[in-house]
Amino acid sequence: MEEPLEIRLAGRRFTITMRTPGHDEELVAGFLFAEGFVSGAREIDEIRRVRGTDGKPEANIVDVLLRVPVEMLRERLQRNFTMNSSCGLCGKTSIESIRRRIAPIDCQGRVSAATLAGLGAAMNSEQALFAQTGGVHAAALFDLSGSLRALREDVGRHNAVDKLVGWAMSGNLLPLADSIVMASGRLSFEIVQKVAAAGAPIIAAVSAPSSLAVELADEAGVTLIGFLRNTAFNVYTHPERVVA
Amino acid sequence: MEEPLEIRLAGRRFTITMRTPGHDEELVAGFLFAEGFVSGAREIDEIRRVRGTDGKPEANIVDVLLRVPVEMLRERLQRNFTMNSSCGLCGKTSIESIRRRIAPIDCQGRVSAATLAGLGAAMNSEQALFAQTGGVHAAALFDLSGSLRALREDVGRHNAVDKLVGWAMSGNLLPLADSIVMASGRLSFEIVQKVAAAGAPIIAAVSAPSSLAVELADEAGVTLIGFLRNTAFNVYTHPERVVA
Repeated sequence: MEEPLEIRLAGRRFTITMRTPGHDEELVAGFLFAEGFVSGAREIDEIRRVRGTDGKPEANIVDVLLRVPVEMLRERLQRNFTMNSSCGLCGKTSIESIRRRIAPIDCQGRVSAATLAGLGAAMNSEQALFAQTGGVHAAALFDLSGSLRALREDVGRHNAVDKLVGWAMSGNLLPLADSIVMASGRLSFEIVQKVAAAGAPIIAAVSAPSSLAVELADEAGVTLIGFLRNTAFNVYTHPERVVA
Repeated sequence: MEEPLEIRLAGRRFTITMRTPGHDEELVAGFLFAEGFVSGAREIDEIRRVRGTDGKPEANIVDVLLRVPVEMLRERLQRNFTMNSSCGLCGKTSIESIRRRIAPIDCQGRVSAATLAGLGAAMNSEQALFAQTGGVHAAALFDLSGSLRALREDVGRHNAVDKLVGWAMSGNLLPLADSIVMASGRLSFEIVQKVAAAGAPIIAAVSAPSSLAVELADEAGVTLIGFLRNTAFNVYTHPERVVA
């Protein structure tokens, strides 16, 4: 399932994203946090469905009321978006501004290679939508002993991560110290950005990382693991967190 | 390789996309066409590298000069983008406007199941970057007899398609009648939109289509084939173009 979700801020259209319906409030909260528009759950007053002319809630439109002073919000918007922006790194005024926004992660936690080797199977067993369709991405949160804490699925890789971050935010679990975020696909700059913003010290993926994903992970103090398939994997950055 | 590309229109920042460097002019031309900002190669006057303060061309900034009257461009921009837009269907004013923009494809060409069965291997053999990295998407253009005409690779699925469309545009091959576009990954609404805008009657992918991709293909008169793996595939829409 792929449907557009229109996100409004105080009644004004902010963005449209294509997503798999479900966990929409988490998606919105996680997106706003991971992209730097809110600094925590306390800054979100309400996420509500917009009602149509018939009085019924619209399935694909949500309105967000923030507890952020207008001036501060304007500053954050200008920092992160420009007019007429597009996909990917949507009009962010520069890659540099993102790099500056992310505080390097200094987590002393360790994960064993054996634990990493078990993440893929643990993740697969919870990918209910993927099992049905073969066509959705997933993002999962594990603790350092390899216990699965949450998993979210979506047609969009970014959305799956946003939903996971939104889930953590709603449970006051941010920053995600001593945890591993695992993604079903590849690791792009944006995915690493979101996970680093959420404070997770380790990010793992089934497939390849991009060059810029590796660079950002290195700078952000994140251990990046790619091509995690069964017992084999590559450690690209901060290998000190992985123990044999 | 993943690097940002800033696209300017007449000196003004238009959008930033994360892409694999290479074929940047095709990417820009294809993006502008597939998203409805230009109607053909004749509307692009020049795509040039912006020069830095040292006089050297910047690797990641291009400026586009269009031959589109300002009023018309403004109308196209308003139709397709809104302020502060984000990923995916970036701020398009509505899904409906996209649906309206795409003229249904009425191509009488046929493809055999045997030809379809050979596309995956033909594509793989040309995916040079994927062979090196295991981490980039591809989009390929085939004629109805299964001959590969062009292939482009990129970290972004959308970019690979944009590059392919840009290549076709620069060779005056649009609309892509009697051809098949094959994508390495899944088929989202946006990918189908781009391929339909380019006029290709058949789109195929190694993986799953989304619900909205299937809906759009149906409306646009496009034959959508998913899960094309070796000799097996699913035909989701307009099966009359596939013959045993």
